[in-house]
Amino acid sequence: MEVIVPFSTDRPKSRLADVLSPDERRAFARAMLTDVLESIVAAGGEPRVLATDAVDVDRTVTVDDRPLTDAVNAALDEHFETAAAGDAETDRSHDPVAVVMADLALATPAAIDRLFAAGCDADVAVAPGRGGGTNAFVASHPAFRVDYHGASYLDHREIAAEVGAAFVAVDSRRLGTDVDEADDLAEVLIHGEGRAARWLREAGFVLDASGGRVGAVRE
Amino acid sequence: MEVIVPFSTDRPKSRLADVLSPDERRAFARAMLTDVLESIVAAGGEPRVLATDAVDVDRTVTVDDRPLTDAVNAALDEHFETAAAGDAETDRSHDPVAVVMADLALATPAAIDRLFAAGCDADVAVAPGRGGGTNAFVASHPAFRVDYHGASYLDHREIAAEVGAAFVAVDSRRLGTDVDEADDLAEVLIHGEGRAARWLREAGFVLDASGGRVGAVRE
Repeated sequence: MEVIVPFSTDRPKSRLADVLSPDERRAFARAMLTDVLESIVAAGGEPRVLATDAVDVDRTVTVDDRPLTDAVNAALDEHFETAAAGDAETDRSHDPVAVVMADLALATPAAIDRLFAAGCDADVAVAPGRGGGTNAFVASHPAFRVDYHGASYLDHREIAAEVGAAFVAVDSRRLGTDVDEADDLAEVLIHGEGRAARWLREAGFVLDASGGRVGAVRE
Repeated sequence: MEVIVPFSTDRPKSRLADVLSPDERRAFARAMLTDVLESIVAAGGEPRVLATDAVDVDRTVTVDDRPLTDAVNAALDEHFETAAAGDAETDRSHDPVAVVMADLALATPAAIDRLFAAGCDADVAVAPGRGGGTNAFVASHPAFRVDYHGASYLDHREIAAEVGAAFVAVDSRRLGTDVDEADDLAEVLIHGEGRAARWLREAGFVLDASGGRVGAVRE
């Protein structure tokens, strides 16, 4: 399955500015991207990075500096239109395509596999994030397009209904956890199994339960 | 499967004090409890409420006013010891028992069913919450006991290892979302399918995306 992984090279992870320097945020974002790409490959997907600028990574990279919604919709256009233009033998117009965010640092091959499986059962399968975000989805309906503004999970459910696409939610905490804020770093320390967790530990982050809630602090 | 549902009648949901009055917090906590109990029954479980004081609910209630860890461990003692004392025919010493928190307002029968299924595959199956909490678990190993302090998910994984119990994590966002704070109310409005979501709507709560992040505000 083709899997598009949007990645912002421009001020990545700015909401982590209180705890990480610009260079550190770049390195940490790259570690998360690499983890996500490896989980996709291990689950049998073919990842393609959709970046806002050139990025040195050992995968196909498409550069598109437009806002996320426009860039992803252009990629969906390309996937379904290229497919429809082919002859019957190579027609991929109903081949599913996935979009998986680059900051899902808890993603494992098993979690990605469940996403792919859900995408076989429905025309659109979405793994929601906190606050109604759309952290990952698979679409096989050629008319489905995205709108990442606001509670996009609800919008995507509505868009699927409008184009007559069967919709299903993917109940995954791993895919539902995007790493945006300082609070999220504890999740990576607790559940992360890859480079991002290692990067945080090497940068001196440890769990801290002294304040009642468990957080990540730098030693 | 026996499913213990701990429920605090004493100042329930105190971290929602900024947005709900004491009476409202009680009513909302009760709505969540009822949703959780119904999901458990629909998934084939036999819920028993473990409350800090009497609670008027259409299920078996055990009152134990000790802290959560002590009360749950006493219930586990009872489950496994009662079982071990029986004759071979009624020996339930390896029958699994589940503990599911009463504030998992997004829990559905399907999510509970996945928890039960994971509990058949391993001696201890835990659905973690945010910050390394233990929102729900199934144990069939008679020596497993709990310690809810701090990042209890990690402690429970360690306790399972110490007693030689095979451990597995349950990757569920629905079970991973306990409703404690104002931010969590948006999750109930977006994904809730039962009484708790209805209660919030009737109390005037709506989604608000004006601040960038999606939250719940009262009209």
